[in-house]
Amino acid sequence: MIEYERFLSQSALKSQGSAIRKMGVMAIRPDMISFAPGYPDPVTFAWAEFREIANELLAGGQGSVLQYGPTRGHKPFIEALVELLASRGITATADQVLITTGSQQGLDLAGRVLLDPGDVVLVELPAYTGAISAFRNTEARLAGVRQAPDGIDLDDLRAVVARERAAGHRVRFLYLVPNFQNPTGLLLSREKRRLLLEWAERDDLLIVEDDPYGALYFEDTATGEDTRPIKADDTEGRVIYLSSFSKTLAPGFRVAWITAPEPLIAKLEVLKQTEDLLTPSLDQHIVYEAYRRGILTERLPMLRKFYQDKRTTMQRTLREELGDLVAWPEPKGGFFLWVSLPVRFATDEMLPRAIEERVIYVAGSAFFVDGSGRNTMRLSFSLPSHDRIVEGVRRLAKVVKAEIAGHPAPVEI
Amino acid sequence: MIEYERFLSQSALKSQGSAIRKMGVMAIRPDMISFAPGYPDPVTFAWAEFREIANELLAGGQGSVLQYGPTRGHKPFIEALVELLASRGITATADQVLITTGSQQGLDLAGRVLLDPGDVVLVELPAYTGAISAFRNTEARLAGVRQAPDGIDLDDLRAVVARERAAGHRVRFLYLVPNFQNPTGLLLSREKRRLLLEWAERDDLLIVEDDPYGALYFEDTATGEDTRPIKADDTEGRVIYLSSFSKTLAPGFRVAWITAPEPLIAKLEVLKQTEDLLTPSLDQHIVYEAYRRGILTERLPMLRKFYQDKRTTMQRTLREELGDLVAWPEPKGGFFLWVSLPVRFATDEMLPRAIEERVIYVAGSAFFVDGSGRNTMRLSFSLPSHDRIVEGVRRLAKVVKAEIAGHPAPVEI
Repeated sequence: MIEYERFLSQSALKSQGSAIRKMGVMAIRPDMISFAPGYPDPVTFAWAEFREIANELLAGGQGSVLQYGPTRGHKPFIEALVELLASRGITATADQVLITTGSQQGLDLAGRVLLDPGDVVLVELPAYTGAISAFRNTEARLAGVRQAPDGIDLDDLRAVVARERAAGHRVRFLYLVPNFQNPTGLLLSREKRRLLLEWAERDDLLIVEDDPYGALYFEDTATGEDTRPIKADDTEGRVIYLSSFSKTLAPGFRVAWITAPEPLIAKLEVLKQTEDLLTPSLDQHIVYEAYRRGILTERLPMLRKFYQDKRTTMQRTLREELGDLVAWPEPKGGFFLWVSLPVRFATDEMLPRAIEERVIYVAGSAFFVDGSGRNTMRLSFSLPSHDRIVEGVRRLAKVVKAEIAGHPAPVEI
Repeated sequence: MIEYERFLSQSALKSQGSAIRKMGVMAIRPDMISFAPGYPDPVTFAWAEFREIANELLAGGQGSVLQYGPTRGHKPFIEALVELLASRGITATADQVLITTGSQQGLDLAGRVLLDPGDVVLVELPAYTGAISAFRNTEARLAGVRQAPDGIDLDDLRAVVARERAAGHRVRFLYLVPNFQNPTGLLLSREKRRLLLEWAERDDLLIVEDDPYGALYFEDTATGEDTRPIKADDTEGRVIYLSSFSKTLAPGFRVAWITAPEPLIAKLEVLKQTEDLLTPSLDQHIVYEAYRRGILTERLPMLRKFYQDKRTTMQRTLREELGDLVAWPEPKGGFFLWVSLPVRFATDEMLPRAIEERVIYVAGSAFFVDGSGRNTMRLSFSLPSHDRIVEGVRRLAKVVKAEIAGHPAPVEI
């Protein structure tokens, strides 16, 4: 066979697979309890309703259900999204919406449309790995900004921008997940949302706001108002807002959307044409019908409670098993619990021992663009059952305690 | 509103929408007969079978139907594709297959993995616009190679490579559609397929072989053997083969695949992770089931006959209406008929008058990377009914005759 390296582009030569996706594959092994991938629980999916909708759509009366269609998306669906956005406080027209094949595509499109090699993207420390990979593919520089318990650290943000500009780099935008961030679960405070808009205006930058989890706030600690998107108060058109049905309806549809000023949507659309022409028609139609029939809205209170309960189980078991040996910020929504060990430990080195105990997580370092965070790990509580959360945390606790006790091999406790 | 140009990447600044996609939107106007987009006819879709399959899949017993899944694709589906490839003479392992969200994604991925700015891609004159856009987004140089009635001109191919290399450019691969090319409908001869492999080896280049139409040969003029992919005889691993279910099952599923040597598939997969994580699960499952149950294989003879008959109707009407005023190569498969007017005419300038007559086509110049071909047009016969093909060709003939007679305004004939 011939040697292919010489045929690869610079970005392909540098590219590496996602740590999370690798963990996703590993989770398939029998009797492994996985806290790794941020998958929703399929028992929450509206199977019966989707089946009924598919049954109607595939009756054959409407060719567009299985045909090519506009790159922007199915028109009535876009109109429905304008309405959904309004319910989140965002005023948008149909011209400001583009349907994407998952928010992952939105991130990839935003990176390709906004970044040239060497440009700087500001990301949180830690940040979602899928965004990191998408931006890195453009050969952009990723600059990390620290987070506080109420979200991104604005002083550090200003300092990083000043530093990058002083070094002669062109800073393009800030990427962040304000609601129940992936991976930390943190909720950005309302005050900071306001201040970020002021900052973007003053520093003449854009904000890419990624909001897959906003609807999944936990009513014991947060309200809908707490999740109000930054985009809702964006009078200048500085925010590119991404959201998705993957965590609420089902990820297998790969249906998400971007809302942005029309000139940007036009450029994102042209690029989407070359990426996949359109988001699959049947999926768009099913999700549209599910929204239109009120299936999403009806189910949200159940979903909030469902994931809140899992969060509570994980949190309680962690406290019971590990007490003060580890720390985490309480998740007020979303899918993730972010655990920090004492700084002298490295969760990536601990992973093989966790796998021996048949439990996995994502080592935190994957989320840090500056190489820090080796003492952290992301635990996703969304998919496993309560029993498996309890059992998985017990297995993990055994590994962590052995680690902390200075015993590299797992011991019975 | 702020000015967004200064926020755009170089490639976004240069990007333009596809001429075909614009025509697709225009076709929505009432009483317009469109020969523009290469859409399959929805009456050919296996509606009842898809409905039954969806009904079974959405019963809820199998979470993976609506869940995230591996980026490579649903495993049993990949195994089935290995079998399907074997039926086309291609020996591949499961490691050499990647499911893509339409072949458009495959083209985009191939471009990004193989091309750096300034690299040369060889494309046919004319070539599929979606490939042209995908490759242009990488800031590659597109070099056109002439076609003969039996496909790409090998002398010109060698001359173009020599010229580009003499100019100091790095030539990367040849992109071509050997079976019923988009837009010309041409079928590459068997002899040339063999010679192309020799050429790729001698000149140390790769071939990107795009084969969406191969299964749709017309039995009155071609056989299955005539469509044998170049990849089938690729012993060195120089061919990246793309194929799709969009023209045979339905395009709305956006399910296609790439077959290539494993090192390239691995790189394509990593990039696909950042583009959309995975091709939608439900669509993969439906297409897999349709294939597994023999629905595709059963329907192919019907589909061949169906599109052959439309081709015959369009060809016959063109002859009746326009005689020798225009010329075209007889399509032996696929969706397209490629019409040339005398060279002094420009089909893009003629388009407004065609629209007045309520008929549209794609002006040929969109498919030529060298700015030539202004006297050509692509007529797609796949979607309109026989009656509408006849009526549309009559309308078009009126425009063409007026043009040829030197009367810029349409006249009654």
